[in-house]
Amino acid sequence: MSKIEIIENEYLSIQKYICDKIEKIDGSAKFIDDKWESNLGTGLTKVVSDGEKIEKGAVNFSLVKGRFSPQMSQILGESGKEFAATGISSIFHPINPWCPIIHMNVRYFELDTGVSWFGGGIDLTPHYVNKKDASIFHKSIKKICDKYASNFYYDYKKWCDDYFYLKHREETRGIGGIFFDRVKPEENKLSFDKLFDFTKELANSYPEIYEEQIILNNDKKFDDNNIKWQNIRRSRYVEYNLLFDRGTKFGLESGGRTESILVSMPPTANWYYDYKPIENSEEETTLNLLKKNIDWININE
Amino acid sequence: MSKIEIIENEYLSIQKYICDKIEKIDGSAKFIDDKWESNLGTGLTKVVSDGEKIEKGAVNFSLVKGRFSPQMSQILGESGKEFAATGISSIFHPINPWCPIIHMNVRYFELDTGVSWFGGGIDLTPHYVNKKDASIFHKSIKKICDKYASNFYYDYKKWCDDYFYLKHREETRGIGGIFFDRVKPEENKLSFDKLFDFTKELANSYPEIYEEQIILNNDKKFDDNNIKWQNIRRSRYVEYNLLFDRGTKFGLESGGRTESILVSMPPTANWYYDYKPIENSEEETTLNLLKKNIDWININE
Repeated sequence: MSKIEIIENEYLSIQKYICDKIEKIDGSAKFIDDKWESNLGTGLTKVVSDGEKIEKGAVNFSLVKGRFSPQMSQILGESGKEFAATGISSIFHPINPWCPIIHMNVRYFELDTGVSWFGGGIDLTPHYVNKKDASIFHKSIKKICDKYASNFYYDYKKWCDDYFYLKHREETRGIGGIFFDRVKPEENKLSFDKLFDFTKELANSYPEIYEEQIILNNDKKFDDNNIKWQNIRRSRYVEYNLLFDRGTKFGLESGGRTESILVSMPPTANWYYDYKPIENSEEETTLNLLKKNIDWININE
Repeated sequence: MSKIEIIENEYLSIQKYICDKIEKIDGSAKFIDDKWESNLGTGLTKVVSDGEKIEKGAVNFSLVKGRFSPQMSQILGESGKEFAATGISSIFHPINPWCPIIHMNVRYFELDTGVSWFGGGIDLTPHYVNKKDASIFHKSIKKICDKYASNFYYDYKKWCDDYFYLKHREETRGIGGIFFDRVKPEENKLSFDKLFDFTKELANSYPEIYEEQIILNNDKKFDDNNIKWQNIRRSRYVEYNLLFDRGTKFGLESGGRTESILVSMPPTANWYYDYKPIENSEEETTLNLLKKNIDWININE
């Protein structure tokens, strides 16, 4: 098997593992499979809706191959004739506003010249930011990173803060996590295999990391005001994904499958003109914590 | 008074006229004034919500002045040191799904070199497309255009179809209307005054044109399925504005006032994975009519 076939197979089985695990965590949700083909490649979009805990979510797998266009060449600063890419991306929007939105992506890209790289990350977008839960999340992510390289957590945490940023609102999308892109084996002390293992471990840990947050929050009672705030925060998620997210924009522009890309959209979003939370409310506390460069590992709870 | 002062004053009084008229059409809505200042200029955002017929809407006025940056110069293909711009933009999201969303914008831009131009348009986004109402709307727009130049309606109708297009869904945003940009007096047989009059007449006719559509549809009964479809169509409106609309993107990127720009967002939007309307339903009929180059004036009802 070629490298990409090995990765494709592994990612496909991790996709299945994630869905099985999420079904157990949710209690009633069942993923629906949507296999697709386009002129770029093939994919399997597994979608869930109206679960017991999860309102909407998906785990996407795709494998695309094609001509490395002059435009892609210019954007990426690489040369080559053919490319291939495979990856998993996932998002879950919970029912309970006290539970966070979670997002994960791992991906592999290779050129016919032999150049290849990995990218990915996991990040959390709580509707209500809670320092204790945020710290637990970041510690879980750091624990994985530290097994591979001592700089990974710190470098990729900063990358995540900078990447998931809504500059028109001066807000981070959520409390971040890690994000990395175009990490090449030859530019790291890590071998190809170790980097591949890193992406596999991230993706495999993703459901447990989410479960941790669900267990902490899903029993909390919520009312219409909490739902209102959830739908406002979801509208910021929409703004980020449509205005800034490179994966979304590149996917839609390059003729990717619209429904698989926009499955990340929340089930509902609300926009109110110039909404300001009540002073000293939990909503205001959240806004004050949607900032870059917070040291979530050592934050004073 | 300088040209721009004259235009600014006229646009401000038209803004007031539109709001007064819309309050009468709605029956209970009251606009709230939000005067703002930024490093770019000043503005007055008039916002309405929870009316009897209108769920959310706004009429924005702004006047901005500043250095004509190399970036703006490159985008516009013009040279100059200073620019000034003023305009009104407006949008209304109705409560009743049988009533359409409407959008209007008129704007004036000038450089210290003496070069100046107008832009603008009116376009309609019905949640349910109805050939008869669409034809009435286009005829009303054409009637205004025809007073100024015989090509305006045809040229600007085509421009509108091409501009308000969601290529990732192969859908127009709605049934169009007219759109024009950078129309310079010296490039037309029309004088500066006539072009200015054209934008004034468009903006002044806007509430009556909307009233026509409201009268035709607001008494129709609607149920949860109609609301569901309305919120799906609203999500497409969000996608258009955040992914493609040049005004929105340029405004947010150039440090424009976020709340005044994103006041165009619908109050609610819903996203369902791969939603397909029932065969031969009114929803399917609508999708089949969200196409470019439909001759709405002569359409067979």
